[in-house]
Amino acid sequence: MEVKTTKYSESINSNRRGNSSQKMKRGLQIEGYLLEGISIAGHETCIIVPSLNLAFDIGKCPQRAISQQFLFISHGHMDHIGGLPMYVATRSLYRMRPPTIIVPKVIKESIEKLFEAHRAMDHSELNHTLIGLDAGEEFYLRKDLKVRAFKTYHVIPSQGYIVYSIKQKLKQEYVGLPGDEIKKLKLSGVEITNTSTAPEIAFTGDTMSDFIKDPKNIDVLRAKILIMESTYVEDKTTADNAREYGHTHLSEIINFADMFQNKAILLIHFSARYQLDVIQEAISAIPPPLAGRVFALTEGF
Amino acid sequence: MEVKTTKYSESINSNRRGNSSQKMKRGLQIEGYLLEGISIAGHETCIIVPSLNLAFDIGKCPQRAISQQFLFISHGHMDHIGGLPMYVATRSLYRMRPPTIIVPKVIKESIEKLFEAHRAMDHSELNHTLIGLDAGEEFYLRKDLKVRAFKTYHVIPSQGYIVYSIKQKLKQEYVGLPGDEIKKLKLSGVEITNTSTAPEIAFTGDTMSDFIKDPKNIDVLRAKILIMESTYVEDKTTADNAREYGHTHLSEIINFADMFQNKAILLIHFSARYQLDVIQEAISAIPPPLAGRVFALTEGF
Repeated sequence: MEVKTTKYSESINSNRRGNSSQKMKRGLQIEGYLLEGISIAGHETCIIVPSLNLAFDIGKCPQRAISQQFLFISHGHMDHIGGLPMYVATRSLYRMRPPTIIVPKVIKESIEKLFEAHRAMDHSELNHTLIGLDAGEEFYLRKDLKVRAFKTYHVIPSQGYIVYSIKQKLKQEYVGLPGDEIKKLKLSGVEITNTSTAPEIAFTGDTMSDFIKDPKNIDVLRAKILIMESTYVEDKTTADNAREYGHTHLSEIINFADMFQNKAILLIHFSARYQLDVIQEAISAIPPPLAGRVFALTEGF
Repeated sequence: MEVKTTKYSESINSNRRGNSSQKMKRGLQIEGYLLEGISIAGHETCIIVPSLNLAFDIGKCPQRAISQQFLFISHGHMDHIGGLPMYVATRSLYRMRPPTIIVPKVIKESIEKLFEAHRAMDHSELNHTLIGLDAGEEFYLRKDLKVRAFKTYHVIPSQGYIVYSIKQKLKQEYVGLPGDEIKKLKLSGVEITNTSTAPEIAFTGDTMSDFIKDPKNIDVLRAKILIMESTYVEDKTTADNAREYGHTHLSEIINFADMFQNKAILLIHFSARYQLDVIQEAISAIPPPLAGRVFALTEGF
């Protein structure tokens, strides 16, 4: 397993960002993916995967989310969608391609109204493509990349997303054939490849641990990387308390340890009450079989 | 004139804010007022006056705006109002008193729709008091503090705000009378005081320089402190260019120098294209009678 934590200062480039809040870039290199962003319960959640050109939730629209073409929204709580109009407006300011925003179908109309209210005020176009997706439905980012929504269990309608890589593999019977024969077969209309999909990254957004037991969510637990919430990590707040708020307690993740086939699990959305050392201690105390493959996104703590 | 620039690091308190963007606090101490905030054209404008418990525009809702009870919105461009729902939601998260938000009457309905869309999504109350004000109309923050909206000249409907202090002064004829006689007069219903108001702080928001020549705006130019936009400061963008975008060029401020009776002028909203030294050089080159009483808010540059 390949894990590297990177923290690097970025030179201040006020021409592009101007906000002192953005001088520090942080990220985790996990299983071949750079995962960036900020996630603090109640405050701001935005997870960025630059190599896939996408972000999960938008928080307050941190600067490095702006360059992502695709945005996936898990639910309508302010700390997850507050920066949505700003994201669209800022891409327009930079003359970037209008973004594609995928949201739970049930909040699509409200989001349209949000943009309508802004357009009425600022007389701008706020161009973007808005796509409503229900759990089980898929959206193709590219020919070789698709996203499927899955059911999560929060206090308001919510869903997570699984990113699948799609590969075309030559069928077994044609392996070893010379190139021009393969070409000839293909031109004659023969289907010479099989399509294989693999769950690369799953993102839960806010949810109770119930999503783990949902048999429809098997691919969430098979994704190479699972980015999941773990709002509470110590005993002062119990797993029952976590459930009351629609959230997950780290102890539940530990209890379900055997379910996770993921190569790495990135925990996000820790309660703002925690100091960094409390989170770090809780993570290092995780027992096998999860020990060593659970990481924490702690920017801002 | 009393001017002090303060820059101080604040210890990271992730329990209250959690966002790494907020670790550094900056402010200018001008004429007895601490003026804080961030203002970069197109990106984010939020000016905070902690001693008056208010902010002008909300930008992306910087952390230190959240504790202000009153918010005055100049116009509906995203970099000035994008963080508005987040401001209300975060005050609620902290169980703070619902804020009072004053907006141009013409955008009040759109802002109501904005909150309605959020409420439909997150099932929260987003409690606040929303007040529409037209130019010339006043709002009392306290018995001794009122704000009047004034006309500005931008590409969409816009207005600025003047904060007035209100003082009750004993009428000349009663000065020197013993305390109990004054009390007796007051109890008998005699009006023993005169009311004097003084413009303390004026805030323009985005505007062309035309607001300076508007005879109704005389108090803007008489306020102790004028916080005004100066989006452009050098020759590559001319005053005519500035007008095209509905903004002000520093050269226009210099041309109108004789009009400003303000003790101090704080320039904000510089173009994101400028490096800090360009702004600083332009400010230090300002000739009399403005020289020495013009300051720049440059957090983020």
